[in-house]
Amino acid sequence: MENQIYLGIDPGFHFTGFSILKLENNKTYLLECNCLQMNSKDTLSKRVGLFYNTFNQKILTYKVTNIVLETSFLGRNAQVFLKLGYLRGVLYLLADQNQINITEFAPTQIKQILTGFGGASKDQVALALKVMFPQLQNVLKNAKSDVSDSLAITLCGVWQNQLKNRLGKIL
Amino acid sequence: MENQIYLGIDPGFHFTGFSILKLENNKTYLLECNCLQMNSKDTLSKRVGLFYNTFNQKILTYKVTNIVLETSFLGRNAQVFLKLGYLRGVLYLLADQNQINITEFAPTQIKQILTGFGGASKDQVALALKVMFPQLQNVLKNAKSDVSDSLAITLCGVWQNQLKNRLGKIL
Repeated sequence: MENQIYLGIDPGFHFTGFSILKLENNKTYLLECNCLQMNSKDTLSKRVGLFYNTFNQKILTYKVTNIVLETSFLGRNAQVFLKLGYLRGVLYLLADQNQINITEFAPTQIKQILTGFGGASKDQVALALKVMFPQLQNVLKNAKSDVSDSLAITLCGVWQNQLKNRLGKIL
Repeated sequence: MENQIYLGIDPGFHFTGFSILKLENNKTYLLECNCLQMNSKDTLSKRVGLFYNTFNQKILTYKVTNIVLETSFLGRNAQVFLKLGYLRGVLYLLADQNQINITEFAPTQIKQILTGFGGASKDQVALALKVMFPQLQNVLKNAKSDVSDSLAITLCGVWQNQLKNRLGKIL
């Protein structure tokens, strides 16, 4: 099987956490784990444009094969929820333009996959990530939660695919 | 003042009504009034891609200078509302990529501008459009309501701009 490159994103108009993982010979390598910060003084369309250009570039640079997202649910503010949809729409567009897969996981699925418990707290998820990526302890400690969230999202994409491949070999 | 070309859109994953109006020497001309239909069997990303390509083409063909949208509010289904955001995000992206203005009007503003009454019914708005565009009677009669909605949205953009220009000359 060819290398699979996963881009997991936790989008936001202020901070967007994203992680890029490579799955090669059944081993997982972290290529980038970062945050895109946008200026809230810029117009909405300018920020949508910056978001598109940033992730278009990442997809081309790393030859991304899969985009992974967390399914979002309505919070307190419907207009914030709608505008999150703008950024998600850009990712669906990039998936189509680059002919790559896009997968969503519900928040409980992500917690279940990472900690074995769908009702896990943010701290429990963060702890699971620290155990798996000890070299990231300092990065994750100083980073915004969007970054570690994006890493959790990306890992779910990777593991789901690994599981599918293993089952494929067994069945 | 140069020609202004307005593209008004009422987006949807099944039917997207759109209208294109030209404002030249203070006269308004209808260039196109149509509906984009998408196949609900296609993936979400394929439909987002088709939506992008269709309106990117319209913007280039007609040299669109302004995009006009109706502000959307949360209805019964939060996930439908979020996915509408995907298409709106694509329009904000196109505005940035083509350096064109994008304006939103609330539903009550649109009714107010077209009929003089913010609480007007859909039928009253449709009647106002028929009076203004008698040549469209047959088109609008057979078209889906998304098409006449998009025409109403586009007209609001045109008139707001005309008003601004007139006030600019007086003040």
